[in-house]
Order: sequence, then C-alpha cells, then structure tokens
Amino acid sequence: MNLSQVGEFGLISLLNKDLIHSPAGVIAGIGDDAAVLQSSGDCWQLFTTDMMVEGIHFRLDWSGYSDVGYKALAVNISDIAAMGGRPTHGVVSIAVSEHTRVEDVVELYRGLREIARNYKVNLVGGDTVKSPGPLVINVALLGEVAAGKAVYRSGATPGDVIYTTGNLGTSAAGLYLLAHQVSCSPQLKDRVIRAHLRPEPRVAAGILLASLEGVSALDDNSDGLAAELREICRAGSVGCLVWEKAFPVLPEVRQLAAQVGASTLDWVMNGGEDYELLFTLRPDRRKAVEEALHRAGIPFTAIGVIVPEQEGLLIERRNGTREVITMKGYNHFTE
Amino acid sequence: MNLSQVGEFGLISLLNKDLIHSPAGVIAGIGDDAAVLQSSGDCWQLFTTDMMVEGIHFRLDWSGYSDVGYKALAVNISDIAAMGGRPTHGVVSIAVSEHTRVEDVVELYRGLREIARNYKVNLVGGDTVKSPGPLVINVALLGEVAAGKAVYRSGATPGDVIYTTGNLGTSAAGLYLLAHQVSCSPQLKDRVIRAHLRPEPRVAAGILLASLEGVSALDDNSDGLAAELREICRAGSVGCLVWEKAFPVLPEVRQLAAQVGASTLDWVMNGGEDYELLFTLRPDRRKAVEEALHRAGIPFTAIGVIVPEQEGLLIERRNGTREVITMKGYNHFTE
Repeated sequence: MNLSQVGEFGLISLLNKDLIHSPAGVIAGIGDDAAVLQSSGDCWQLFTTDMMVEGIHFRLDWSGYSDVGYKALAVNISDIAAMGGRPTHGVVSIAVSEHTRVEDVVELYRGLREIARNYKVNLVGGDTVKSPGPLVINVALLGEVAAGKAVYRSGATPGDVIYTTGNLGTSAAGLYLLAHQVSCSPQLKDRVIRAHLRPEPRVAAGILLASLEGVSALDDNSDGLAAELREICRAGSVGCLVWEKAFPVLPEVRQLAAQVGASTLDWVMNGGEDYELLFTLRPDRRKAVEEALHRAGIPFTAIGVIVPEQEGLLIERRNGTREVITMKGYNHFTE
Repeated sequence: MNLSQVGEFGLISLLNKDLIHSPAGVIAGIGDDAAVLQSSGDCWQLFTTDMMVEGIHFRLDWSGYSDVGYKALAVNISDIAAMGGRPTHGVVSIAVSEHTRVEDVVELYRGLREIARNYKVNLVGGDTVKSPGPLVINVALLGEVAAGKAVYRSGATPGDVIYTTGNLGTSAAGLYLLAHQVSCSPQLKDRVIRAHLRPEPRVAAGILLASLEGVSALDDNSDGLAAELREICRAGSVGCLVWEKAFPVLPEVRQLAAQVGASTLDWVMNGGEDYELLFTLRPDRRKAVEEALHRAGIPFTAIGVIVPEQEGLLIERRNGTREVITMKGYNHFTE
C-alpha cells in the first residue's frame, strides 16, 4: 500500500500513536495547529513545524527566493495564531543544491528576516544542508499563550456561529494568475498574487480571540474552507451549515473568476492558503466579540452555524438548496 | 558565486546577521549546538534543528527506514547533550514520495519512537508532505538545562585539557563497511555499523559535565575531530595541540583500517558522526571531574591541551613530529 492510497490523514492516524513519554509536560500533543506545552510561568508554550518543498509547495519561476523564505515562516506563524498565541523563536533548515547561487540563499533569508521582524520572531538556529534535488525549507516555531487560554479546534457545539476573518479565495485567485496568462488590472494582480506568495498571518486577531470569552474553536484556513470545517467538525463531533451567499470574497476576485470561467466557490472551499482564522462563537457572546473585533479593526464575517453531528457538513447554495460539503483540498497525497 | 565556492561556513556567516528582534528572550542565538532561551523557571530552554536528506546524509540501501528515523532524532539529541542539557519535546517533518510504501513510513516512525522512548523525548507535532525526489526528514528539538549551566563551545583557555568521551572513528569504520565488501567478524561489523546508523548521544555525560565546575567548553563530535577542534578554537580564540597516540580508537577498528589500507587517523579526524562529546577542562579540576565521570561509568580520554591562538591547531603524530591540523570533514558544500 502506498501513500497515495492511504492519504495524508490515514497516514497521520497510523503514525501518531505512543509519541508522548513524559506526559506531565504536554498539555496537547499532535492533532491541532500547534502543540501546547507546560511552561513554568504564567504562559503556556506552543510548538509547531511546517515543511515546504520546491515543485510541491512553490515554484521558483512563480516565486522569488525571498517569497519562499517569507511564506515558510508565515505558515508557521499562522499555526501559532490559530491557537491564540504570539510567535517567539524559530529555527530554519534548508536543503539546497550545491549549484545554487549564494545570492539566492541570501535572498531567501531576506524574506525570512523581513517577516521575522514584522512579527517579532527571533530566528535562533538552523541547518543548511545539500540537496541532490529540490529546494526544501523547514521552519519550527515556538510561541506563547496565556496559561489556560489556548483555543483548540475541538470546542464547537451546536448553535455556535462560524466566523472567518478577512476574505476567502484571494490566494487561489493569485495562484490562478501565476499559472495562467490573464489580462487584468495590475492592482488586482499584485494584491492576489501577494496574498498567495506572502500571506499575512492573523496574529493580532488570534491573540484577541483567545482573550475573549465565548470563542469555542479556532483554526487557520490553510487547506481550504472545506477541509478546515471538516477539522473543526471532526474535532468537536459536530456538523455545520455554511451559507455560500455570506462568504466574504473580494468583488474583484469574483469578477476574475467569472472572466476566466473559474468557480469562486471552488477557490473558497478548496483553494486554501488564505491563512485567515476560522472560529466558532457561542451565540450569547456574538455582540461582545464582534464589538471587540470592530474596535481592533479586524475584518470578520459570520458564515454559518454549528449543527448536531448527525446533520453532517452542509452548504446552503445561493439558490437555497443544501448540499453536502465535499472534500477536495485536504489530502496532500491523493490529489 | 555558488555554494560550492563559498562553502557552508561562509554561507552561515552571510546569513546569520540581524536575526534577533526581541533580544530579551535570547541568551544565545545561532552559533553553538543549540540556541539558549530565557525561560521563566529555574531552567533555560535549548532549541536546535537538523535536516537529513536521502543521498546526502543516508542511503536507503544501507539504512533501514527505522534507522533513518532513529538517527534523525539522535543527532538533535546530541546537540542538546552538547550544551549540557536534557532533551524534552520534538517535532518532525518528513517529505516523502507519494509512491513510498506506508509500511516504510511506519517503520521510520518506529525508529523515531524507539529513540524518543529511550531518551524520554515527547514527539508533539509534525508535518508530512510530498517530495518529488529524495526523502527528507527534519527534526526540531527542545531541551532544558539548569539556568546558568549551559556549556558553550567558546570557554576554552590555554592550559585547559581536551577530552573526548567514548571512542572515535567507529562511525567512519561503519560507513566504510557499508560502502565496501570486507570480510570481518560479524560482531565487529554489527558494532561499527550500528555506531554509524544508530548513534547513542551522550546525554548523561553532558548533564553531568554541565553540573561540574571547571568544564570550560563542550561540543559534540559530529563533523569529525578536526572540524570540532576548529570550532572550539575559533569560538574561544585559542589554539590546540592533540596527541595522536592518545586517541581512543577500538583495537578492532585499528585492525580493520590496517586490513583495508585505510587511515585510522583520517577516520578520527575527518570521518565524523561519532556523536561523542568533546570537552575542555581547567587543569586544577581534572581529578574531581575524572572521578565523577568514573563514578558515572562514562568512558573518557584526555587527548590534548589548549594553547594560545597564535600557536595554531596542531597534532603531535606518533613519531613525535607536529603537524598543522588540516580540515577536510567540515564543509558540506565543497567536499
């Protein structure tokens, strides 16, 4: 049996047994955006890692080296944000061909340094090794969250309202423009391509949400809305109903999809890489949390509700029909 | 200019500028075996990462998948040991071909789990991604050391005695037997190949050394004795004189080298991957530290002395002549 048959999630469930040998120090191990570790002060520590491989996660004809460095840290920062935490210290490993130009590696580090500075992350270690093939970059990142305040994927209960920050589908639109020759305004092109190559993780929003009562589940939208809803529903043993007409999509992105004959809905559900935060909220806390987000200048939209598990994962289309949400974006091996 | 021209150390010095944005939390950043971070209790935290790439660091016709998992964590544990610390929590990223058999990935995790259990490391997170080429595995590892007790590479001063734990050249002998058809005893073959594929990091020795007064510098012997002496001398602005006749090499390894016409000295100086600890000791503390190591059952040998920087890095050969130590094993790009 090979990996394309068992799939990413099947593999993870096979591997993730019996990995904790000193349970006292571990509040949450594998299974959420980041692990949560006991720490001796008034903070808990968060720990996450993500690997990006040339030809799979990025193409050097579409990205500059600095974009690769920027995004490799951005996706890890987003995992910390998705626990309600603040990133602190990271280590970076890169595997590069011996024929790589020094200037290109320096450029990759320029992107790393830029985002590290923007989000106050210290880069405290690394490994630079030879690759016989693709460029590979791995970041491991620590963060911190007030003790007891980490927000997991698993806390949603029926009746909770589902929200997202920002807009969805923007990164998928950027990927489309990188892959196809399309005539469109330079402003739109810059904006959506930047969203794809240099996502801005929602650290301030995550910290604020973790500090507010009533936020029951939190995740980042890295694999597409369909996959992330599935994660929240699986972790909380609940179902969901989301409303297509509520999805926050930039008007220019809708226009672009119409122009090129692509589906905005597919970009939202399966495109992924928006790195917005998806969260659920107890209904009695809507007013207080919405006001706090407004005051902080964080854009957000209610896109659905949590329902009992037996109702499944549903989307209400614009014409009022309800459909089961299908999973396309989540499996890195069977796609 | 490409990487094979500038070399690994040239590259590192280009990249490692301006990486710390919140200095208060960082006691030591890039430049030693692991970073040292402020932690709120009576411990400091250690943080390190290492990447291994198929075809560069291992070959799957020489190693089982479980050996690859074992060693990927072992080399990180050794970095924590080389600061005097105890490993605590790790995260693991692997990039694998979609055609990889599930059983092989499970086997890789079996090796990871085995060494994690042996050294009481919790594996708390990971990432599993697709590789278009080689298998790549990255581990990032946290550890802890009593506050103020981390031992750096940089503390050696002239007159200090240079020691190593265990034996040197064993891993290089194992690599030789993997690469060549040689008739030798199965016991020897098992022992040296095991030393190469499944090194046992010296955690207990590191913790003991960090607790004893007079240990001035500490490093692990991962890149060969020549490279590690160079690191200690560079970091401390000192020179060294080591005595070939003192080098602890297994008699069977010497015999094997003689049998195949290889140089034991080359295996010791440039073979690397022994993952023994190299340390320097104030001469007035020799008796106390040697007794403590004896009591703990940790094998060790004095192999030289630290001298003033201007005397350089010297080796006294068996015939009494002194030679400058040449560097072969340290550069991963120009080899």
